[in-house]
Amino acid sequence: MAANTGQLVKDEESLSVGIKIQPLSSTPMAEHWRVDGGERQTPPSLVERLGFDEIFSLNVWRASVGELLGSAVLVFMIDTIVISTIESETKMPNLIMSVLIAITITILLLAVFPVSGGHISPLISFSAALVGLISISRATIYILAQCLGAVLGALALKAVVSSTIEQTFSLGGCTLTVIAPGPNGPVTIGLETSQALWLEIICSFVFLFASIWMAYDHRQAKTLGLFKVFAIVGTVLGLLVFVSTTVTAKKGYAGAGMNPARCLGPAIVRGGHLWNGHWVFWAGPAIACAVFYLYTKIIPRQHFHANGYKHDFFDVLKALLGSNGGQR
Amino acid sequence: MAANTGQLVKDEESLSVGIKIQPLSSTPMAEHWRVDGGERQTPPSLVERLGFDEIFSLNVWRASVGELLGSAVLVFMIDTIVISTIESETKMPNLIMSVLIAITITILLLAVFPVSGGHISPLISFSAALVGLISISRATIYILAQCLGAVLGALALKAVVSSTIEQTFSLGGCTLTVIAPGPNGPVTIGLETSQALWLEIICSFVFLFASIWMAYDHRQAKTLGLFKVFAIVGTVLGLLVFVSTTVTAKKGYAGAGMNPARCLGPAIVRGGHLWNGHWVFWAGPAIACAVFYLYTKIIPRQHFHANGYKHDFFDVLKALLGSNGGQR
Amino acid sequence: MAANTGQLVKDEESLSVGIKIQPLSSTPMAEHWRVDGGERQTPPSLVERLGFDEIFSLNVWRASVGELLGSAVLVFMIDTIVISTIESETKMPNLIMSVLIAITITILLLAVFPVSGGHISPLISFSAALVGLISISRATIYILAQCLGAVLGALALKAVVSSTIEQTFSLGGCTLTVIAPGPNGPVTIGLETSQALWLEIICSFVFLFASIWMAYDHRQAKTLGLFKVFAIVGTVLGLLVFVSTTVTAKKGYAGAGMNPARCLGPAIVRGGHLWNGHWVFWAGPAIACAVFYLYTKIIPRQHFHANGYKHDFFDVLKALLGSNGGQR
Amino acid sequence: MAANTGQLVKDEESLSVGIKIQPLSSTPMAEHWRVDGGERQTPPSLVERLGFDEIFSLNVWRASVGELLGSAVLVFMIDTIVISTIESETKMPNLIMSVLIAITITILLLAVFPVSGGHISPLISFSAALVGLISISRATIYILAQCLGAVLGALALKAVVSSTIEQTFSLGGCTLTVIAPGPNGPVTIGLETSQALWLEIICSFVFLFASIWMAYDHRQAKTLGLFKVFAIVGTVLGLLVFVSTTVTAKKGYAGAGMNPARCLGPAIVRGGHLWNGHWVFWAGPAIACAVFYLYTKIIPRQHFHANGYKHDFFDVLKALLGSNGGQR
Repeated sequence: MAANTGQLVKDEESLSVGIKIQPLSSTPMAEHWRVDGGERQTPPSLVERLGFDEIFSLNVWRASVGELLGSAVLVFMIDTIVISTIESETKMPNLIMSVLIAITITILLLAVFPVSGGHISPLISFSAALVGLISISRATIYILAQCLGAVLGALALKAVVSSTIEQTFSLGGCTLTVIAPGPNGPVTIGLETSQALWLEIICSFVFLFASIWMAYDHRQAKTLGLFKVFAIVGTVLGLLVFVSTTVTAKKGYAGAGMNPARCLGPAIVRGGHLWNGHWVFWAGPAIACAVFYLYTKIIPRQHFHANGYKHDFFDVLKALLGSNGGQR
Repeated sequence: MAANTGQLVKDEESLSVGIKIQPLSSTPMAEHWRVDGGERQTPPSLVERLGFDEIFSLNVWRASVGELLGSAVLVFMIDTIVISTIESETKMPNLIMSVLIAITITILLLAVFPVSGGHISPLISFSAALVGLISISRATIYILAQCLGAVLGALALKAVVSSTIEQTFSLGGCTLTVIAPGPNGPVTIGLETSQALWLEIICSFVFLFASIWMAYDHRQAKTLGLFKVFAIVGTVLGLLVFVSTTVTAKKGYAGAGMNPARCLGPAIVRGGHLWNGHWVFWAGPAIACAVFYLYTKIIPRQHFHANGYKHDFFDVLKALLGSNGGQR
Repeated sequence: MAANTGQLVKDEESLSVGIKIQPLSSTPMAEHWRVDGGERQTPPSLVERLGFDEIFSLNVWRASVGELLGSAVLVFMIDTIVISTIESETKMPNLIMSVLIAITITILLLAVFPVSGGHISPLISFSAALVGLISISRATIYILAQCLGAVLGALALKAVVSSTIEQTFSLGGCTLTVIAPGPNGPVTIGLETSQALWLEIICSFVFLFASIWMAYDHRQAKTLGLFKVFAIVGTVLGLLVFVSTTVTAKKGYAGAGMNPARCLGPAIVRGGHLWNGHWVFWAGPAIACAVFYLYTKIIPRQHFHANGYKHDFFDVLKALLGSNGGQR
Repeated sequence: MAANTGQLVKDEESLSVGIKIQPLSSTPMAEHWRVDGGERQTPPSLVERLGFDEIFSLNVWRASVGELLGSAVLVFMIDTIVISTIESETKMPNLIMSVLIAITITILLLAVFPVSGGHISPLISFSAALVGLISISRATIYILAQCLGAVLGALALKAVVSSTIEQTFSLGGCTLTVIAPGPNGPVTIGLETSQALWLEIICSFVFLFASIWMAYDHRQAKTLGLFKVFAIVGTVLGLLVFVSTTVTAKKGYAGAGMNPARCLGPAIVRGGHLWNGHWVFWAGPAIACAVFYLYTKIIPRQHFHANGYKHDFFDVLKALLGSNGGQR
C-alpha cells in the first residue's frame, strides 16, 4: 500500500524527478519515493532493481518497526475479536466479527501507512514487490518484521487469556482441523487440505483484485483518496473473512488466512495442530500474487497506471538474464 | 458504466477533440474515448457505428479480461454471501444478504471500472450499447467474457463448498422453483414463470432507471462523482434483491437476477432445475433495456446529457437503412 | 489531542512564527500554540521546557475546567452506559456498550477540544507531555483536573442510582475482582493482577499506536480532519473496551481502564474492593506511554511529522543534564 | 441552535454589519441576525438588550409558528416511538427507542432551523437567551409557542391511540411515579423527587455541555457544519434518553425530560399523575442552564468564540444596574 501514497505523490513529483534526477532527500517523505522514481535516464542495474542497498539502509529497518508493531497489534486485535465475539454467544458471530475486523484493519493501515507504507501482511508486501512498487529486499525485510510482530502479538495474547480459552480457540490462529471428542475416542474434523488451498488462493486473489488493485493504480488511488482506499481494503477483507468462515460450514476451519504472518504467529507460540497444513496459508497467497501479477500484465497497459515502478518483476528477470530491462 | 468516466472526462476533452480532431492516442485513457469522441465532422460509417474494427482490437479483448475476472469474482462473492447468510440462521437473512451484496457490487465496480469501464453485467453492457456509449461489437465481447467469467466463478465456488451445500443452495444460482419432498412424493414449488418475468422486467428497469441512469448522464455523474454513483448502483441493486426475495414470499424463488451472466454460470456448472425458466433471466433484462432506451428518447433531451454517443441504437438503425444518421 | 489542531494550525503558522517570533497573542487560539511554536531562535531554557510559567497562567487553570467537566461527564456517561446496557439484559451487552462508549467519547472530545485541547484522559495528557506537545506542568494540571472531575462524575452518578445498583455495579468503576457468594462463604473471583497489568499495558499501547498517533502527526491529522481523527479515537477505544471485557471471560474484571482518572473517581467515592490492584490502572498506561514514546523515536524521523514540539522529553532530559538541547 | 447558523453567517456578515449598520432587511435570513450584530458603535440600551421591540415584531411571532409546529410534531413522534417500541416487545426497547428519537430530533432540527433557528425545546431557548444569542423576549415567545405546540401534539396523539394505550403509557408523558395495583390496594411506585431532580439537572447539563456547546461556538459550528452539529445534538439526546430510562431501573419513571414543553403537553391533555413532581422537569433544565452559563464564563474567553452576542445575561444585568455593559 506504499503504492498508494506512492501514486498520490508521484503524479506531481515525477515531473521534477524525471527531469532533475535530484534525490529529493531533503523533503521528509522523499526517502520512500526516491527508490521508485529516481535515476530514470540510465536503466537501473540489477543490484538497484533487487534493492540490495536497502538492506543496509537504517531507514528501511526503522520503517520495518512500524510493520512489526502493526502486525503485533493486528494479531492481538483480530484474535481477541474472534475470541470475544464467539464467547459472546451472539446469533451472528461471524458477521459481527467481520465488521470489527474490517474496522480494525482500516484503522491499523491508516496508523502504519506513514511509517512503512501500511502493508502489515506478507500478501501485500509480496504483491507490491512483484508489481515493482518496492524492491524484493525491502519486501523481505518487511515480511520478516511482520512474522516477528505476529509472534509478539500472539505472545501478548497468550499473556492475557486463560489457558481454557487458549485451548478452545487455539489463540485465534489459522486452523484447518480441530480434534474433537467423538464416540470412539477423539476424531479430527475440519476441511480437506486441497479445499482449503483453493479457498486460500481464491480469497487472496479476490482481495488483491478488488481492493489492493485500487491502491496500486495511480488514478484510482488519487480519485478515491487515502481513507476510502483503506476503508475498501478493510471492508473487502472483512467480507472475505465472513464468507470463508461460513461458506464451508465445517467446524474446525477458521477461515481463509490471507495473511501468512498472522497465521505463523499463533502457530509458533502455541504449536500443536496449528502446524497442520500451515503451508497452505503461505502457498495460497503466493499463488494468488502470481495470478494477480499476470492479470496486471494482460490488461491494457494504459488502464493500469503504475508506470515508474522500478522493481517490476519482469524487468528484474530480464536484468537477471542479461538483457536490458530499462526501456519499457 | 464506462459511461461514467466517459462523461467525467468527455466534458473537458470534447472541447479539444471537437476542434482538433486529434486522435489523442498518446494519452493513456484516450483509446477508450477515441471511439466515442473522435472524427465528428463526417458522419461515422455503418462499420464504425457497429464497431466491427473493435473485434480485431487486442485492447478490447484485453479489457474483457477485466470483465471476465470481475464476473467470476462477482459470482463467487454473491453466491458465497447468499449461502453464508442463510447458513448463519439469522433472523433477517435477506436484509443482511442485501447489504453485503450492495457493498460487494460497489467495490467490484470500482475495481473493474478503470480496466473495462465496469459493467460486469450483460444488463449494463447491453443498455450501454443501446444508448450508444459502447459499440454493439464491444458489448458482445464483454457479454461473452462475463458469461465465461460467471462459469469460472461457479467452478471456483464448487471447488470450495461441500456437496450437501451445493445440493441445498444450487450454488446460489437463479432458481424459479425448487423440488421439495412432499407427502405424495417430491413436488415442485416456486414462482410461476409469468410472475417471475414481470418481476425481472420491473426490477431490471428500476435498476436502470434509478441508478445506471446517473452513470450515463453527464451532469449527474459529474455532480455525484465516481464513488457515490457506484455506491448508489450497489445500494439500488441490494434493495431490489431484498425486495424481490421477500415480496413474493415463495420458497424456491431466489429473487430477481438482473444479471443474466451470473444466472448462466451456476446453471452451466450445476445444471438440473437451474435451467427451468432460465430464459426469463435473459428476456427480462433485455425487455427492460428496450423500455429504458425508449424512456431516454421520450424525456426532454436537455434532461439527459448524453450527447456524442456515436453508437446510439437509432443512429445505427438509420445507418443500416441507408439514411444519414450523422446529424442529430 | 491538543496536538491535533496544534498540527493543523502550526503548518501555516510556523511560517510566520518562526520568522517573526511574534507571540500572536491577539489571535484567539494563539495562547495555546505560542507555548509550542514561539521563540525558536534561542534554545528554550529548562524552565521554559518544563513549562513552569504555565503553572501561574490563569488560562491554563481555566482550560483545565474543561478537562474537569469533561472528565465528570465522561465518568457519568460511561458508567451509566455500562449499568444501563447490562441492566437491559440484552444478548450482547459488551458490543452495544462499546458502540455507545465510542460515540460518547467522540462527542466529548469534540466538545472539550476547543477549550483545553480535548484530552479528558491522563493517558493522553501524559503521552502528549512525553512527545512534547504540551509541557509537563500543563499535563500535571490537566491530570489533577481530570481526577477531580472523575470524582465529581462518580458523585453525580451516586446521586441518581439506587443503592442496590451501586452495590451490583460498583458505580461502573474499574474492578479486577469481585466478591461473590460461594458455597463455603464469599469468595473473591476475578483476574490476576499480573494478567490485568499486561492487558492494561497492551490496550493502552494499542490505543496510542492506532489512534492518538494520528492526532500527533501533522500530516495524518491534516489529511483526515478533526472529526475523523476523533471518530477513530472513539472507535479504537470502543473496540478495546469490547475486547478487554470479553477476552478474559472472567467475571469481576471490568475491562481495561485506559484512563486512570475514570478509575480513580469511583474508587474514591465508593472505596472498598475498587482499591484492589488500583495501581494497575496507573502503571499500565504509564508504561504504555513510555513504550509509545520510544516507538516515535525509533521510526524514521521523516515519517513522524511532529517537529517543533518544544517540550519533547529527550530535550527536557538533555536540558536537565546541562547539554544544549535546542538544535534538533 | 439559531446560534449555529448565527455563527456560520456572522463571521462574514459582522464585517459589513458592524460597519454599515444597515438593517439588511431585504435578505430572507437577515431579520434574525440583525438583532445580534447591528448597532455596535453605541452600547445597546436596556430595552434593546431585553429585546422588547421583538415582542411587537411580526417576524418573531411568525418564526414561533415553526417552533409551535416543530414541538407538536416532536411530541407526536417521540411519544408514538415510545409506545410503538414498547408495544413491539423487542428485547432492547430502550435502545431502539433512543436511536429512533435521535434520528427524529436531528431531522426536526434541520427542518425547523431555517424558520426559527431550530430550538423546539425551552431548554435550548432559555440557554440561548442566557448566552445572549437571542433576547429574553424572543425566548419567552418561543417557549410559549413550544408549550402550545406540545399540547397540540398531545391532542393529536390522543386522537389516534386507543384509550387502553393512553392508560398504559400516559400518552408517553414525563412521569416520576405510576400507580400500580399492589397486594394491599394500589401503591405508588417510582423515583423519589430529589433523585429525579438530580438526574434532570445532570442530563440537561450534559446535553448542553456535550452538544449545544458546539452549536453556540463560532469555530466548532463552522468546522463541523450544520448537519454534523444537529446529528450530534440528536445523538446526545438519544444517548441520554437511553441512559436515564435504564440507569434508575425504577418502574414508573419515564426518564429525564430535558424539554419541559414536551412534558407539559401530555400533562395538560391527560392530567392525573402526570402532574406529580412536574416542577422537576422545569427546575432541572433551568438550573442546568445556569451552570452551563457559568461554565462558558469561567473557561478562557478565547476558547469560546461567541463574541457579539448582544443579549448576554451579565451584560443585561449590568445594564439593569445602570453600569455601562457595552465595552467587553
